[in-house]
Amino acid sequence: MYENFSFNILKQSNDGRLGIIHTPHGDVKTPAFIFCGTKGSVKGISPYQLNELNTQIILSNTYHLFVYPGSEHIKRHGGLHKFIGWNKPMFSDSGGFQIFSLGNGSVADEIKGKRSGVSTLSKITEEGAIFRSYWDGSKQLLTPEISIQVQRNIGTDLIVALDECTPYHSDRRYTEKSMYRSHRWELRSLNEFESHDDGSQALYGIVQGGVHPDFRKVSAEFVSEHNFFAAAIGGTLGASKEQMYEVVGMAMDNLIKTRPIHLLGIGGICDIFNGVRMGIDTFDCVHPTRIARHGGALVKREYRDDERREHINLKRSEYANDDNPIEKDCNCPTCRLFSRAYLHYLLKVNELLALQAIAMHNIYFMNQLMSEIRSGLTNDNLSEVKYKWK
Amino acid sequence: MYENFSFNILKQSNDGRLGIIHTPHGDVKTPAFIFCGTKGSVKGISPYQLNELNTQIILSNTYHLFVYPGSEHIKRHGGLHKFIGWNKPMFSDSGGFQIFSLGNGSVADEIKGKRSGVSTLSKITEEGAIFRSYWDGSKQLLTPEISIQVQRNIGTDLIVALDECTPYHSDRRYTEKSMYRSHRWELRSLNEFESHDDGSQALYGIVQGGVHPDFRKVSAEFVSEHNFFAAAIGGTLGASKEQMYEVVGMAMDNLIKTRPIHLLGIGGICDIFNGVRMGIDTFDCVHPTRIARHGGALVKREYRDDERREHINLKRSEYANDDNPIEKDCNCPTCRLFSRAYLHYLLKVNELLALQAIAMHNIYFMNQLMSEIRSGLTNDNLSEVKYKWK
Repeated sequence: MYENFSFNILKQSNDGRLGIIHTPHGDVKTPAFIFCGTKGSVKGISPYQLNELNTQIILSNTYHLFVYPGSEHIKRHGGLHKFIGWNKPMFSDSGGFQIFSLGNGSVADEIKGKRSGVSTLSKITEEGAIFRSYWDGSKQLLTPEISIQVQRNIGTDLIVALDECTPYHSDRRYTEKSMYRSHRWELRSLNEFESHDDGSQALYGIVQGGVHPDFRKVSAEFVSEHNFFAAAIGGTLGASKEQMYEVVGMAMDNLIKTRPIHLLGIGGICDIFNGVRMGIDTFDCVHPTRIARHGGALVKREYRDDERREHINLKRSEYANDDNPIEKDCNCPTCRLFSRAYLHYLLKVNELLALQAIAMHNIYFMNQLMSEIRSGLTNDNLSEVKYKWK
Repeated sequence: MYENFSFNILKQSNDGRLGIIHTPHGDVKTPAFIFCGTKGSVKGISPYQLNELNTQIILSNTYHLFVYPGSEHIKRHGGLHKFIGWNKPMFSDSGGFQIFSLGNGSVADEIKGKRSGVSTLSKITEEGAIFRSYWDGSKQLLTPEISIQVQRNIGTDLIVALDECTPYHSDRRYTEKSMYRSHRWELRSLNEFESHDDGSQALYGIVQGGVHPDFRKVSAEFVSEHNFFAAAIGGTLGASKEQMYEVVGMAMDNLIKTRPIHLLGIGGICDIFNGVRMGIDTFDCVHPTRIARHGGALVKREYRDDERREHINLKRSEYANDDNPIEKDCNCPTCRLFSRAYLHYLLKVNELLALQAIAMHNIYFMNQLMSEIRSGLTNDNLSEVKYKWK
């Protein structure tokens, strides 16, 4: 298994590790950031633009594609790479996060569309999760087997076993019960994966266990003991940044280190530096593209207007007359062409171009950040890199 | 005057004429299509994309920029070319069309934005037009002098004298009165232009006169007799295509032929072929970019699904499983990468990328159409070109 995939660790230090994930659609230099193309499109940005912005890898959400247009549809059109025109590596999640987190409203923004309803989780059984589709209100069942089948149909390179994303407010007892069910689901995912494996995909296990050190240890050991290609750290990471690093640490202490390790849903600059130091190889988050749609442009330390935020809000009136680009030292298409004043104006008059232009900056920014982090690891000067970006 | 501008007619035949308009921001090969960047942005498309799509020239609407952010703001930021990042020729209208046509609702789509109100014309006097701003409800006055001052501030290359855009339903008496007032306004525009001319702009006169042959003759002669760089045919062009060609013909018969001639607001493929044959040099219309936002992709004759329409509507369910690009023989970024099935899917799930992708096709399509029309005029085979495109 995984004969077309491999993970090479090029360098390891106290600062983190430098590696390459090889996939049938090309290599991913790590540490890397994975951009969210939720419904098979990074919002407002085309694949050739992603490519020009040095993007290595994107993800799509199994949940959204499962609900509409359905994975069989995508399979009939040659798989997701061909369907959306992206020839580089692609990651998909299991669909679980969207279903289980809807009660917390965190995905509501993502699935705002024509249809007003949002999916609701109806029931979790040993078999799987029953929910109502946000697309047409129909009742749907997601099981570990279905999740893997859907991901097989869409043909993403890196796929993820189904788990229950245990909410933060769950008690210790529920978290334990939920974790063991997740492990059973992950084994069923692995079985389903192995029984149809054609070498084109690689499966990630997920570490659950909430904020409890003993459970995170059990779960990390579970994932490490089974034949997953890689591990993803999921579930609640706590209520604060401090707790997040603690929880990630609990998992890291017990994960097998020869495999890639992904941290789900984390994409802040500071968090990425801390994650890299702890040994995380890949990150994903909607943050860079989502804040763009609200006028938020990511900026390095020297360009910030508020030390509590890693971005500037171009809707603010102070930018109406600012002839500087978002960042003077940025070489992205947006910074080469547009001033903050023009972007501010476009946001004020609701012009679509604003969203595209700011998203392009943010994508380039994240790719540049990860590239400099890799250089920092290579040259043993990550702290200098961090001072510039964090 | 106009020492930095010139119009060279390279070839003239019964099929139309081939020329070049020289401007300080470069040349425009004619016949040419001018794309609408209403508020200083071609909706959802960036200037570097416009450039990649072989775009020669775009226009911005004086009315929109006057209302917000104001021409002084644009001037402070180095003029419109610099503000929006477009270094090639630019055209602006006088602002009149938007004010006078709002009663007919034809601009309502254009100015849909955050603010719900639309501008309303309050009063026309000899001095100018009083209207309420759609942006903030304030009372505003547009005079010929102000229109020219605004266009001077934004710094577009080709600018237009203020006229009243006489509605179709006006009677003969009103049309006559309105035309003579337009002529007086155009003379005031010309005076204002001449008194501050620095060689960076060239002024178009506008032919009015409604659907009446005698008035169109008077108006075309008026424009020809005065020192305008070029002429634009404006006002109502009638209620049918037949009447449009008739009305354009009335103007063409009486216009001086050494200057460029623009036909305002016309952009259908069939209309362009007919316009070119009548001697029109440039066209503008929101059509190619507007239909894109509703899923409409322009296609040549062989790709149509309904002979009454020059585009296909990608929202239609028949495209859900169509793996072909919009046009098999099109070399635009959209047709090289995306299938009709993917574009259909993106439209269904309201993804921004659909609008960008279809608009890019339509812009490339129009530029390709105009390029082949120029080749047809060069090689005396315009009828073959027309058969393919019309």
